[in-house]
Amino acid sequence: MAGSSFGKIFRVTTWGESHGEAMGVVVDGCPAMLELSEADIQYELDRRRPGVSEITTERNEADVVKILSGVFESRTLGTPISMLIWNRDVDSSPYEPLKDIARPGQADFSYQQKYGIRDYRGGGRASGRETVARVAAGAIAKKVLAGQDQGQSQNQNHNHNCAIRIAGHVVEIGGIRAREMRVLEIMRNAESNAVRCADLKAAKQMERLIKEIKEEGDSVGGIVEVIALGVPAGLGEPVFDKLDAELAKALMSIGAVKGVEIGVGFEAAKLKGSEMNDEFYIDAGKIRMRTNNAGGLLGGISTGAPIICRIAVKPTPSISKPQRSVDMQKMEDVALEIKGRHDSCICPRIVPVAEAMVALVLVDHLYRCKV
Amino acid sequence: MAGSSFGKIFRVTTWGESHGEAMGVVVDGCPAMLELSEADIQYELDRRRPGVSEITTERNEADVVKILSGVFESRTLGTPISMLIWNRDVDSSPYEPLKDIARPGQADFSYQQKYGIRDYRGGGRASGRETVARVAAGAIAKKVLAGQDQGQSQNQNHNHNCAIRIAGHVVEIGGIRAREMRVLEIMRNAESNAVRCADLKAAKQMERLIKEIKEEGDSVGGIVEVIALGVPAGLGEPVFDKLDAELAKALMSIGAVKGVEIGVGFEAAKLKGSEMNDEFYIDAGKIRMRTNNAGGLLGGISTGAPIICRIAVKPTPSISKPQRSVDMQKMEDVALEIKGRHDSCICPRIVPVAEAMVALVLVDHLYRCKV
Amino acid sequence: MAGSSFGKIFRVTTWGESHGEAMGVVVDGCPAMLELSEADIQYELDRRRPGVSEITTERNEADVVKILSGVFESRTLGTPISMLIWNRDVDSSPYEPLKDIARPGQADFSYQQKYGIRDYRGGGRASGRETVARVAAGAIAKKVLAGQDQGQSQNQNHNHNCAIRIAGHVVEIGGIRAREMRVLEIMRNAESNAVRCADLKAAKQMERLIKEIKEEGDSVGGIVEVIALGVPAGLGEPVFDKLDAELAKALMSIGAVKGVEIGVGFEAAKLKGSEMNDEFYIDAGKIRMRTNNAGGLLGGISTGAPIICRIAVKPTPSISKPQRSVDMQKMEDVALEIKGRHDSCICPRIVPVAEAMVALVLVDHLYRCKV
Amino acid sequence: MAGSSFGKIFRVTTWGESHGEAMGVVVDGCPAMLELSEADIQYELDRRRPGVSEITTERNEADVVKILSGVFESRTLGTPISMLIWNRDVDSSPYEPLKDIARPGQADFSYQQKYGIRDYRGGGRASGRETVARVAAGAIAKKVLAGQDQGQSQNQNHNHNCAIRIAGHVVEIGGIRAREMRVLEIMRNAESNAVRCADLKAAKQMERLIKEIKEEGDSVGGIVEVIALGVPAGLGEPVFDKLDAELAKALMSIGAVKGVEIGVGFEAAKLKGSEMNDEFYIDAGKIRMRTNNAGGLLGGISTGAPIICRIAVKPTPSISKPQRSVDMQKMEDVALEIKGRHDSCICPRIVPVAEAMVALVLVDHLYRCKV
Repeated sequence: MAGSSFGKIFRVTTWGESHGEAMGVVVDGCPAMLELSEADIQYELDRRRPGVSEITTERNEADVVKILSGVFESRTLGTPISMLIWNRDVDSSPYEPLKDIARPGQADFSYQQKYGIRDYRGGGRASGRETVARVAAGAIAKKVLAGQDQGQSQNQNHNHNCAIRIAGHVVEIGGIRAREMRVLEIMRNAESNAVRCADLKAAKQMERLIKEIKEEGDSVGGIVEVIALGVPAGLGEPVFDKLDAELAKALMSIGAVKGVEIGVGFEAAKLKGSEMNDEFYIDAGKIRMRTNNAGGLLGGISTGAPIICRIAVKPTPSISKPQRSVDMQKMEDVALEIKGRHDSCICPRIVPVAEAMVALVLVDHLYRCKV
Repeated sequence: MAGSSFGKIFRVTTWGESHGEAMGVVVDGCPAMLELSEADIQYELDRRRPGVSEITTERNEADVVKILSGVFESRTLGTPISMLIWNRDVDSSPYEPLKDIARPGQADFSYQQKYGIRDYRGGGRASGRETVARVAAGAIAKKVLAGQDQGQSQNQNHNHNCAIRIAGHVVEIGGIRAREMRVLEIMRNAESNAVRCADLKAAKQMERLIKEIKEEGDSVGGIVEVIALGVPAGLGEPVFDKLDAELAKALMSIGAVKGVEIGVGFEAAKLKGSEMNDEFYIDAGKIRMRTNNAGGLLGGISTGAPIICRIAVKPTPSISKPQRSVDMQKMEDVALEIKGRHDSCICPRIVPVAEAMVALVLVDHLYRCKV
Repeated sequence: MAGSSFGKIFRVTTWGESHGEAMGVVVDGCPAMLELSEADIQYELDRRRPGVSEITTERNEADVVKILSGVFESRTLGTPISMLIWNRDVDSSPYEPLKDIARPGQADFSYQQKYGIRDYRGGGRASGRETVARVAAGAIAKKVLAGQDQGQSQNQNHNHNCAIRIAGHVVEIGGIRAREMRVLEIMRNAESNAVRCADLKAAKQMERLIKEIKEEGDSVGGIVEVIALGVPAGLGEPVFDKLDAELAKALMSIGAVKGVEIGVGFEAAKLKGSEMNDEFYIDAGKIRMRTNNAGGLLGGISTGAPIICRIAVKPTPSISKPQRSVDMQKMEDVALEIKGRHDSCICPRIVPVAEAMVALVLVDHLYRCKV
Repeated sequence: MAGSSFGKIFRVTTWGESHGEAMGVVVDGCPAMLELSEADIQYELDRRRPGVSEITTERNEADVVKILSGVFESRTLGTPISMLIWNRDVDSSPYEPLKDIARPGQADFSYQQKYGIRDYRGGGRASGRETVARVAAGAIAKKVLAGQDQGQSQNQNHNHNCAIRIAGHVVEIGGIRAREMRVLEIMRNAESNAVRCADLKAAKQMERLIKEIKEEGDSVGGIVEVIALGVPAGLGEPVFDKLDAELAKALMSIGAVKGVEIGVGFEAAKLKGSEMNDEFYIDAGKIRMRTNNAGGLLGGISTGAPIICRIAVKPTPSISKPQRSVDMQKMEDVALEIKGRHDSCICPRIVPVAEAMVALVLVDHLYRCKV
């Protein structure tokens, strides 16, 4: 059982059902003396918030975060940070007729099989809304990684001297692929449009496609990329807890994700060793690599090069197009048209979630590595 | 630190360096009363053994496993099972000149950065040889999953009534792709040839390609697929410990893996919801799905359909073709030609390793789910 | 870091500072289909509530628990149960002058050394108030142990057929010791008086002593015993996770506890093997023991006999009698008289906390043992 | 299940049955660059070795340790250290007649109930022989604590600047109690006699008592104290993972232990707050305490004062005096006289085991605290 906690040292536990009282998260293991305010977290929550553009779900949640513990006089205490976001704009009536229906592509059937009970309203615990808690925790992780953590106690060394930045963007939606771009360009452009695609021309096409798909009552998938800059060499543990293994778990744990790749990823299957290997050279007294096919990791340990990972995001399963399904109670076939408010493409809103997961992995390993 | 353990309930800890005394693994959490012999484990070890075909490395290890604890009168005791495989055919001389060299695509540089020390002989802890321990543990997991576990104590219910089978095969090497095949055909054919490809025509082409590549002094990557049949619905935990997340971690933790996908995987990025969703229907009083694009998992919980995962395997980094690299001690550029005995394509030998990892995930979740 | 979580399968994470917004706990791993209401939890919270008798602290907290997730239509979902208790009767003014003072016997000094910061109001995270969250979680554990868990899903077997009861009582305060009593008598009497001592004569003496001590501006320690009835044989894991080891950790983690013993405990040091050993005999076709010196555990595994543990509780460190201490900021000696509202003897209020910890250990091992 | 691992960061997994092939331990999470040889470990193993004095068991094991991994050119690699001790002097014949007997005070009954199978030879996994693996791991922990760890990698800070020493001794056997002594005197004297009692006069009496008891065919219990010197302030985590809680678990996990206390321990139950509290004062610019009733811990966090813990050790259950018991197979009462080779008082040999457990707790928390 269990399963709602992540991380060994910087340990995050989320809770909450989509139409329950609230969503929340407890972060245990955050260092003391970090400056932290609700505004730090709110910034990230606003990035994933529904209802902010015409291509996202219409549920309107302010998603105001409240810190209930672990912060005192604007600094972290080193004790658990409890954060809570109330569920406000909850309308469960569209879910009443779906009470016993196994919606295709959703967790209704598997949860019912596992538990014999489920909160059918808005997907319950399996809802994408759960990610609000991940993003809240990730916001703290990002702040630690960014190196704001300058406090010092007698017994601990808290100034990490690190400055790790994490940037996510959409690289593909429904077959439309962004062109290859430099990291700085990606960082500059990605937040400038509703699809979070740094290639502005592709972004326009993606927006158009999503609108068309929405009008069809359908949805569409895509690919999100996350880049971590400034990760020092030496993060990650050998064998099972390789950094790429932990990233794969973290990213695959996001609801709609069906694939994860690092560096050149599946492309590696087609390459020769002489093409794949990143050659080393000495540059001004430092060891560097000419290419970064490995995506910043060798043997599961960071090399100092940017860490690059991509995830395959499936199309949102909730579509208004007619589908065939079953009533799990009456055990009979049913025809299904899902009304309600759903993203036609979840990729843009997954960007901050994916960033949060990468941040949680890195901060946990930053501390594991200090050992 | 740490990182050499896997699983929460069926917990596996591996140890050993490639050219050290021995490789080993401790399995803690295996149920009592399971019939178990060294022969059960040896069968799987022989499948990954080097030196068995002309396309694999020439290091010749008998890889005879020795059970040192946890088994009494041919049955498991419920206490830790310690297994050991001596390293016999060790010749460290080719590694002497590479002592300070960061071999491209290998973990030399990242380990050196992390630890300030490494066992440079044969890759040390980062060697693919570490997987011998995984396969030994996986052999026990497979036996538990297969349902041989019929013993019963007063206080525990050990007869799982499960019959889970795990089958791996190579689906692509260097761009040559096997045709789509039915599971039974895959199971029948995969072990019949040196590349472990069930499409016998493609298998021939792959073998030819590997030999050509070997002659060039180069290597080549590929894709391995693992299928788990008979997994009951309800395995996996919500949110972070989703079954697909754990599979992704397990598979990505294998040395050469650069990507993991479940079901249609990255293909999902190009699909519409109406194409991706697997529709449910009632068949003879049971809920079934017409398709299995999801690969047996919804919301991270198994549905009862076959679990299907694929991994991208990069080309072996050790190639005899000249490469540029650096001496980490002298901090100068060097030219490098790696002699020694290396697989030109590691995919066939990764098949039993990937199966072992899937088995370890499933057995752990089988017990977590019993809770 | 971290440290605010307990249990491997039934996993509890507490949060909150004494004078912060609220106290709370997340329980992850509680089985689905358990009937659960806030009233179930409130009953136990009321038992540890301050301000209920003249011998306890005067802080007046209603301690009303709110369930925020994990329960749907009066049944558990199998997903995390988040519970929250607001801090209402908070008056931090008496703590202002103590801001930089290391109160003797309190965690001020050690927290300041560890973190370089602390919430000095009411003890912050180190306050006994933290135990309100433990008791809330323990209330759920007790309900599971009592065997109310009759639901059944397809894939899991949730009817434990167990009926474990946990009873705590005070056996000694300030040298006054209760006489030896039978378990049923203890259960009947313990809750009948303010000191929770089943020996009613001793209880009167204890009450009198506590009042005297309180008038002196001092405090007094004691011993609490917890008995678990109906624990099936076979709970506990060999070697490090012995049931007595886990109980020792759980009980020693309660703030004021300085010792833990199982069965005859420290008395064992004076006994011979022939006196200590509990002899077995056959009674109506069952194996029983004539005595229970071992306290229900052999080799760390339960035998089916009652589990008996005792804890040594130190006198409350907050006393109004003058004490010598230091100002950690000015680095100078100070004279100290602690005003404020404190229990003169914490033992009676520790009873429900100790019961909660025993319940948490047992429920976790009940599930570990099902594996 | 599981249960044979200890520690979160410095993680130890033991394996082996008393009359199986070997005993062993894997230490994962030891820092790299620590100088380590088999001799370092052998020293501690020799201290717990059976057959070294006339008051210990007659099983004669050389207990020669072999390091199989994790050490390269006399330095640790940061990867798992696997150690193995062969079981040589094994004579299982005395156990044949006891195959189905539940020996009083032993784990035969509880293991049989739990697993439905057990290795009855020499106690199997429940044997005191298991502690050989703990002592081997503890020897490494002690070396790390002693501050031999001077290596440095680029990314990690390995020079702990700590110098923690751990000293155990016997303070009571069968009612004979050693007088109060200063730490230095304890350290000087404890290893000078077979009972490991620093009070040489009491030691003589204890030795005499043990011999008498042995002649009676009986055994006797006692109390062992472990002192840790040089522990910096700030070790331990709040709430559940308090340092005293972890020490309690570690020590209670040793086979014969029935009680654990910290500082004044159970004596605290009789004290007033004004007597128990350790007052602070400023001494040459440092904060000190006049007394150490708390045993070096406040709020579960170390204060810098010596950590003092004591354990109650029950008399060895294996006695040759006649006892009543049962045959678990035939389900009938039996008379029992246990032949074989057993310590009449296990206390002296538990000293190095208790030290090892304290070392394992401290080293794990030293690293947790560095986070």
